[in-house]
Amino acid sequence: MRMLTKLTYLIPLLLTASAFGQDEPPAEGTYEAFMAGSDAAMFTVNNLWILLSAALVFIMHLGFCSVESGLCQKKNTVNILFKNVFIVCIGALTYMAWGFNAMYPGTMGEDWNGFFAMGSPLMNGFADEATRTASVTADYASYTIWTDFIFQAMFAATAATIVSGAVAERVKLVSFMIYATILVGFFYPITGSWKWGTGWLDAKGFYDFAGSTLVHAFGGFAALAAIIVLGPRRGKFTKEGVKPILPHNLPLANIGVFMLFLGWFGFNGGSVLSADPEAVSRVFVTTAMAGFAGGLAAMFTSWAVLKKPDLSMGLNGILAGLVGITAGADSISPWMSVVVGAIAGAIVVFSVIFFDKIKIDDPVGAVSVHGVCGLWGTVAVGIFSTNPDHSFGIQLMGCLAISAFAFIASFVLFFLLKVTLGVRVDAQEEEEGLDVAEHGAPAYTD
Amino acid sequence: MRMLTKLTYLIPLLLTASAFGQDEPPAEGTYEAFMAGSDAAMFTVNNLWILLSAALVFIMHLGFCSVESGLCQKKNTVNILFKNVFIVCIGALTYMAWGFNAMYPGTMGEDWNGFFAMGSPLMNGFADEATRTASVTADYASYTIWTDFIFQAMFAATAATIVSGAVAERVKLVSFMIYATILVGFFYPITGSWKWGTGWLDAKGFYDFAGSTLVHAFGGFAALAAIIVLGPRRGKFTKEGVKPILPHNLPLANIGVFMLFLGWFGFNGGSVLSADPEAVSRVFVTTAMAGFAGGLAAMFTSWAVLKKPDLSMGLNGILAGLVGITAGADSISPWMSVVVGAIAGAIVVFSVIFFDKIKIDDPVGAVSVHGVCGLWGTVAVGIFSTNPDHSFGIQLMGCLAISAFAFIASFVLFFLLKVTLGVRVDAQEEEEGLDVAEHGAPAYTD
Amino acid sequence: MRMLTKLTYLIPLLLTASAFGQDEPPAEGTYEAFMAGSDAAMFTVNNLWILLSAALVFIMHLGFCSVESGLCQKKNTVNILFKNVFIVCIGALTYMAWGFNAMYPGTMGEDWNGFFAMGSPLMNGFADEATRTASVTADYASYTIWTDFIFQAMFAATAATIVSGAVAERVKLVSFMIYATILVGFFYPITGSWKWGTGWLDAKGFYDFAGSTLVHAFGGFAALAAIIVLGPRRGKFTKEGVKPILPHNLPLANIGVFMLFLGWFGFNGGSVLSADPEAVSRVFVTTAMAGFAGGLAAMFTSWAVLKKPDLSMGLNGILAGLVGITAGADSISPWMSVVVGAIAGAIVVFSVIFFDKIKIDDPVGAVSVHGVCGLWGTVAVGIFSTNPDHSFGIQLMGCLAISAFAFIASFVLFFLLKVTLGVRVDAQEEEEGLDVAEHGAPAYTD
Repeated sequence: MRMLTKLTYLIPLLLTASAFGQDEPPAEGTYEAFMAGSDAAMFTVNNLWILLSAALVFIMHLGFCSVESGLCQKKNTVNILFKNVFIVCIGALTYMAWGFNAMYPGTMGEDWNGFFAMGSPLMNGFADEATRTASVTADYASYTIWTDFIFQAMFAATAATIVSGAVAERVKLVSFMIYATILVGFFYPITGSWKWGTGWLDAKGFYDFAGSTLVHAFGGFAALAAIIVLGPRRGKFTKEGVKPILPHNLPLANIGVFMLFLGWFGFNGGSVLSADPEAVSRVFVTTAMAGFAGGLAAMFTSWAVLKKPDLSMGLNGILAGLVGITAGADSISPWMSVVVGAIAGAIVVFSVIFFDKIKIDDPVGAVSVHGVCGLWGTVAVGIFSTNPDHSFGIQLMGCLAISAFAFIASFVLFFLLKVTLGVRVDAQEEEEGLDVAEHGAPAYTD
Repeated sequence: MRMLTKLTYLIPLLLTASAFGQDEPPAEGTYEAFMAGSDAAMFTVNNLWILLSAALVFIMHLGFCSVESGLCQKKNTVNILFKNVFIVCIGALTYMAWGFNAMYPGTMGEDWNGFFAMGSPLMNGFADEATRTASVTADYASYTIWTDFIFQAMFAATAATIVSGAVAERVKLVSFMIYATILVGFFYPITGSWKWGTGWLDAKGFYDFAGSTLVHAFGGFAALAAIIVLGPRRGKFTKEGVKPILPHNLPLANIGVFMLFLGWFGFNGGSVLSADPEAVSRVFVTTAMAGFAGGLAAMFTSWAVLKKPDLSMGLNGILAGLVGITAGADSISPWMSVVVGAIAGAIVVFSVIFFDKIKIDDPVGAVSVHGVCGLWGTVAVGIFSTNPDHSFGIQLMGCLAISAFAFIASFVLFFLLKVTLGVRVDAQEEEEGLDVAEHGAPAYTD
Repeated sequence: MRMLTKLTYLIPLLLTASAFGQDEPPAEGTYEAFMAGSDAAMFTVNNLWILLSAALVFIMHLGFCSVESGLCQKKNTVNILFKNVFIVCIGALTYMAWGFNAMYPGTMGEDWNGFFAMGSPLMNGFADEATRTASVTADYASYTIWTDFIFQAMFAATAATIVSGAVAERVKLVSFMIYATILVGFFYPITGSWKWGTGWLDAKGFYDFAGSTLVHAFGGFAALAAIIVLGPRRGKFTKEGVKPILPHNLPLANIGVFMLFLGWFGFNGGSVLSADPEAVSRVFVTTAMAGFAGGLAAMFTSWAVLKKPDLSMGLNGILAGLVGITAGADSISPWMSVVVGAIAGAIVVFSVIFFDKIKIDDPVGAVSVHGVCGLWGTVAVGIFSTNPDHSFGIQLMGCLAISAFAFIASFVLFFLLKVTLGVRVDAQEEEEGLDVAEHGAPAYTD
């Protein structure tokens, strides 16, 4: 549904804009005329909900900051926060300068090749009267172009933030900043356009409601490539086996997970692209229940496997359930969303253990939560969707195509950085911690 | 007002549902027809507000997590977070599987006995066209059934979470998990149905707008029973007197209180059950001012009594004010809400001191904040309400009936757990802290 | 726009209020009649947005608590939290008792002198039918009086909270509480009335959309006066040069900044005073992009100047960008908001260094963020606004007038407190930390 709205509100309409005095009624086809009409209240509530969703997705970035820094070591906290704050800032700015228009080329009403489109800076202001008024008069439109932009911009930075957690505690700051800028500014809009920009995957019938694949699996598999290039933290995989590196602040990680959960109501609920009561309320239910089921499933699965009630597994299970339902939050029934979330919660436990076993070091479990459960959520649409048009085969193809692109693009980019600037801090800095070594200040003092 | 809506939107209407093509207008009585009509925008904004309220009540669970863990000792932090995360997950799932339909039996349009009704799983999807459309065409309806469910489900887990704080630092994890599941899944809907499910207390004219009694006093008196069975923490009450056990992280507790305050705008504001401007705006004012007045009153009362400006008393005073206004947030005038909140803030200080004196150990003051101030708020409706139908005697009877039920049910259940599984960790585990002893990991590492 | 609404909804209309039965239609001119009409849905969504904005501005107080305590030393954490919690409580209560009516005298439809008006307690309830219904029938009205009050009350406490950060770690608690009460309860409404209460600055054409000057510069220059009277922390400025005093908890400060950013969507977005889609969505975009640009600019500026990537400068840069765009969030174009925010982010770095150089000790950078960038944002309207009525000269005059008033009033008040009660803790208490010395408890225990 995401691109339908976009398709319509940007079609240039030929309207006669005219200045008007206080006593004249507003000219037909103008924003003022529309807002004096009978559809204005519905438009206003729809627009308000998408703006609120943008604010909710914004607060997910506090969630990422807090969960990633909480799950890592104390000595690397400032570094993680710095990276995350940088990403959300640069992500929104590059999206304004390039990504938004690169991701939604079909919305210009022109043909495009379905694989790659050039971006361009978002226009400044509502100078173009035709565009502005089209945004409220077209059949499917339910928000202004600025609402659309800010909602999508808050999404955009998410992908790079996912990588941030995986490479934590040993990545070189400047290299990561360059990597993240290119990933979020250039690569993310490409795969985004394949589906939400009416590209080739959309034409094939691939479905990803709010981004299990387009956002989460993209970020998760980009992260996997990066940590393969980067290598594990020193001392993680020793001859004596895997050495657990404990989280330094679990209440902080807990705050992060709750903020992410809260933000997900906007991430999924806003992806309805209107405030339609039936659709948004079902999405709230499926989203929340999948998150709760994921948390419970991960708590009990890890308890059975690890023989102790593990809080961080429970927290990752909640996130896994949320990632899992994201592709089908509007088309999977409430009870099936419990099933999808519970399976995601179980998957994440085994996935975390698996990556430890094959010596791939992912400090916060980002590849498992976002990558593996993103794939699961996408194919789950092919299994559980109430919409008969959704196909398991197409879902599988779509998520593999995007994950493969993310993996390869990330691998090439990070490898180029490795052979040029280097991507890893030296052993002494890693030992000392990045906070003092790179930032000159610890996160906590007495 | 809570049950009126429910009463109407589930009455099975005999509607002829029909499939329709693109060119036909939607069939009369369907959701699509309703949404094409003139009431659609109002329905949409009402529904949106209740959904947002559900999200706000959700974030109260982060508030509970943070305030409870912040006010306890460092060594038991993981345990508290684990319990709270578990409760919100299991609470929503049991509510979907049993509680929602057990709490609102009158909404089926059938007679019931007014004391106890069987629950059943919430139906899956909007398969029943009649039910779905009834939700938007009946006179009082202002939201979909999914909105109603998710809002009530977020409420449900609150009761057990209140107990969690009181039993903290010495309760056995598995026993508490069983206890909490039964409390939230089975006991809470029973007393809830007495009022909000059109049961016997509702028939008598008892009033509890958003749950001073149905949620807070229920949780507070269930907590009191549990800590009487459980006994105090070792070393709290010694021959030399009461030994204060200091909070381990006050900024965390502070975050928790602000999150609870924020969520209360949804807890009370959403209980209007529509976005009616007059009603919701008055509830915002009474809620906020009672919270602020409670905080000030507790700050100055504790300063006078304890001879020092005590932050945790101030924070508990804010919560006390909020609990106090919850029963009458719609029917107590703004200035009287300041009075109700201030009295609650003073009460909580003396109540905390009182329970310490009679050697009942409540680490976070949950019995005082939720139990005692929940009672106060409920009878305050009988004193300050602008609605002449509200009666002091009925209010007193209602809150005593529900508190007594909560106390007895909790006592019996917790006692049964004590004589079977045991409810308390052993002395060594309590000394060492539950985080390492039960969860194998500390909350903080260096 | 802020005062236009106020002007209309309080004009006493001569309406015949009448009781009516269930079968009669509601009497003309009543709230009930209005809500049965065609403007009801629009009024409801507008009102809801301002209420949500009030909740968002409320959570900014958690932001202030967390950023101020996180940036200070561990030993003074409880003291900072206590002050902030006190301010938000007393601020709302004094605003209800005096400030609201003192700040909006023109709204009574009476002439006033434009410089100073007497306040009075906000009326209780909606007893005055005429006033109540006027609030929904007048042309510009889009919310109830209670919505207006709670939104403005949440703003009011902000000014004193800004001072709280600047005087942290050495101010005497009781003196500060008296100071903050008078500042927020009495001084803030005076300068507020000059613009938003249709006073003399408004008559001159001064523009301050959401308070770069009326809130932020007011607070920042009040803070500057206070810290000049108070003097620097012991050991900050030594013979060997400026000794950096490191923040004690950067994840906490980070939580604070994100909470402030989130709240700013309500601070600026709610200042549209309706949910008008075009206006609110543009304000969301300009606000967010200025914040992001401010963060990036401060990161890179401080990196260049201080030779290390400094997290706390980046965080203050975000706040600087947000303060900077506040005066013109509705009248500066999106790309120019990036410029305004980026300049603010650079300014804050040099300003913090400058105040250190002239030995004015501001532990959290409040004077730079709120004072200096508040001035910048106000004059930026004169430079970048798309509205030709905005004038650089008038903007400069307005912000200097209000800042000068804030500085002088704060200086006189704080000086009087210094020579009477004293404003500073003694050297031993400062060394020991205010938490144990004044509050008898540390913020963190093991």
